[in-house]
Amino acid sequence: MIDITDRIFLAHQGGKIHTRPNLPILNHDDLARIYTPGVAQVCTAIHEDPEQVYALTVKRNMVAVVTDGTAVLGLGNIGPYAAAPVMEGKAVLFKQLAGINAFPICLDTTDTEEIIRTVKAIAPIFGGINLEDISSPRCFEIERRLEEELDIPVFHDDQHGTAIVVLAGLINALKVTGKQIDHVRIVVNGVGAAGVSICRMLLAAGARHLVPVDQEGALIRGGNYTHPKWQWLAGQSGVEDQPGTLQEVIAGADVFIGVSRGGILQPQDVQRMAPLPIVFAMANPEPEISPELALPYARVYATGRSDYPNQINNVLAFPGIFKGALECRAQRINDQMKLAAAQAIAAVVRDTELNAAYIIPSLFNDQVVIKVRQAVIEAAVSSGIAKIIPPGFEI
Amino acid sequence: MIDITDRIFLAHQGGKIHTRPNLPILNHDDLARIYTPGVAQVCTAIHEDPEQVYALTVKRNMVAVVTDGTAVLGLGNIGPYAAAPVMEGKAVLFKQLAGINAFPICLDTTDTEEIIRTVKAIAPIFGGINLEDISSPRCFEIERRLEEELDIPVFHDDQHGTAIVVLAGLINALKVTGKQIDHVRIVVNGVGAAGVSICRMLLAAGARHLVPVDQEGALIRGGNYTHPKWQWLAGQSGVEDQPGTLQEVIAGADVFIGVSRGGILQPQDVQRMAPLPIVFAMANPEPEISPELALPYARVYATGRSDYPNQINNVLAFPGIFKGALECRAQRINDQMKLAAAQAIAAVVRDTELNAAYIIPSLFNDQVVIKVRQAVIEAAVSSGIAKIIPPGFEI
Repeated sequence: MIDITDRIFLAHQGGKIHTRPNLPILNHDDLARIYTPGVAQVCTAIHEDPEQVYALTVKRNMVAVVTDGTAVLGLGNIGPYAAAPVMEGKAVLFKQLAGINAFPICLDTTDTEEIIRTVKAIAPIFGGINLEDISSPRCFEIERRLEEELDIPVFHDDQHGTAIVVLAGLINALKVTGKQIDHVRIVVNGVGAAGVSICRMLLAAGARHLVPVDQEGALIRGGNYTHPKWQWLAGQSGVEDQPGTLQEVIAGADVFIGVSRGGILQPQDVQRMAPLPIVFAMANPEPEISPELALPYARVYATGRSDYPNQINNVLAFPGIFKGALECRAQRINDQMKLAAAQAIAAVVRDTELNAAYIIPSLFNDQVVIKVRQAVIEAAVSSGIAKIIPPGFEI
Repeated sequence: MIDITDRIFLAHQGGKIHTRPNLPILNHDDLARIYTPGVAQVCTAIHEDPEQVYALTVKRNMVAVVTDGTAVLGLGNIGPYAAAPVMEGKAVLFKQLAGINAFPICLDTTDTEEIIRTVKAIAPIFGGINLEDISSPRCFEIERRLEEELDIPVFHDDQHGTAIVVLAGLINALKVTGKQIDHVRIVVNGVGAAGVSICRMLLAAGARHLVPVDQEGALIRGGNYTHPKWQWLAGQSGVEDQPGTLQEVIAGADVFIGVSRGGILQPQDVQRMAPLPIVFAMANPEPEISPELALPYARVYATGRSDYPNQINNVLAFPGIFKGALECRAQRINDQMKLAAAQAIAAVVRDTELNAAYIIPSLFNDQVVIKVRQAVIEAAVSSGIAKIIPPGFEI
């Protein structure tokens, strides 16, 4: 344990990313080309044609990983300094998995308007904004406003990354159980940032019998909720309008998706689900129910952990999504692109390989980014949101 | 000409910097160490002891190069997008010359308060702030407030970088002419960001006969100036209080320092200076007087250009200054550190090498950063502003 901890701290000495010149400046000739006086021509070219910023600066392949440190991993509101290692780690993954340059921005404010203003103010150098570990419900408003007010894609990974990978896993789990998404009853336990986005995604993918559950029980139409997002969700067509506790609504459900807290689900709950139950227990680090307790009854079981089979991890989504979105200059990441990404992740697992213990590809399967990028570009082009049509993607 | 231009644009394709992981993530073991779940320990360590952010994140060696694009090179207010190539170039120089990671931040606002708020909000990941190409007089307030309100060094390079290198050049030019700084009469033409800082620096270095000149003529006590900085400067001890145009006050001056505009100084003006005149004509790209016109009369002549001898370029200052300041965790860059940097740059030119055509070292002299770093740390330690005393710098 000490040894592992030492290795972890060692790997963090001095941080986890650095910046590097693309070309060196070794003499006056280099300097005149890369800095003054030559750079003035490049500035002038961008000033005359702002589109050139995508050709002549880092913008086209640079993402900001932005947090205010209010909802970091399972640690909660630990502030922007303590959040930095997560943002740096994310920047490492962006580069390593998708070749995207990414830079951590840790905000010393938790005020919604101030965060929106700040991100807008620093946006010119970035081609996309990855929001990260910002607490609910502020994260909804921040993302919505930035999407509206910026002309680059904005993506709150804790919401949509998770939702996309859950849907990918569910697509394959349903194949394993021979069920259809529009027929199954799905209980989503936990309606924070991830839970709401999962529900939205499942509805977009065709779910018709969805039961979002918070600490008070199933959401119901006309319930008195603190945030418009809950109100909105409870009123959606495809969302059941039946009150009940988790233990009540789980009876007869085909699918349980937990983004709540450890140990909340008991083996007898799984026993009371419909035949061939699917259980995604994604609370971290302790799942809603352990594999030892769930697997005697669950047909398919998945978690967010790498030490069990079927790891639902948003690292499968964001690298390829941003790669595709940046490449086609999508001004936002719309539902079609998110659905296409989920289908692409699911399709990386071939039908011949698919089984209850392998519904989702490994993070290190190099087909994932390739397929997600392609699907995202196709969806962006066909939904008319791509500003550039990359070669090979003409309709 | 076409060819050079092509080479310049080619060097700017896709921007001039990229980010890179310090360690790769190639498998689940790497992921668990560099990202989740291992990173949580590192976050917790910083949360419990905020000082650890300097050990365990990129902060200790990361500088933001911040602009609002209002005063870029000689191009003026071209905005944050067109300014990006200069900021990227600066980031290249930080890394290449001093090993410092630097990241361009181009602000989509020109409001003073908004700039201050934004820089404060994004400060947690940075160990220092290099302000760049922000127009005068807003730059003074922005720098002052950020210095007061942040606990990391803030340095407006257009002001202080230039001033430090001018002083370095002047120290050596005075040696060449056998004059003393407290005896010479110095005309500084142009009192924008650089001019004001040059005057302040010269006064701090002991100048007693200083004549700041703006477009209306020499500054005078009780003059009606639009900004408190001019008022302040006109009232300083060591600043002459004699009205007159540039052509009037240049008579009998030992030193002319121009940060104004091309062609403003005539050969007959230089002829009317004191014996062994020193002329620093730093307007860009066209100097206040060309070497062809000045050198028949000037004993020492310098410009900001690389194609003439004696290039006064702030690239000589900022890499070593930030390197020193970051290493000793100076919370600001005080006058002692700036003076020490100027003396260190001057001292890189050995007495045996010193001559009228070689008063300032080359940008590519690798002793510059080494000596400036050392001098800056010594000055920070002895003036009590260093938070860390690096090995070898104990008093």
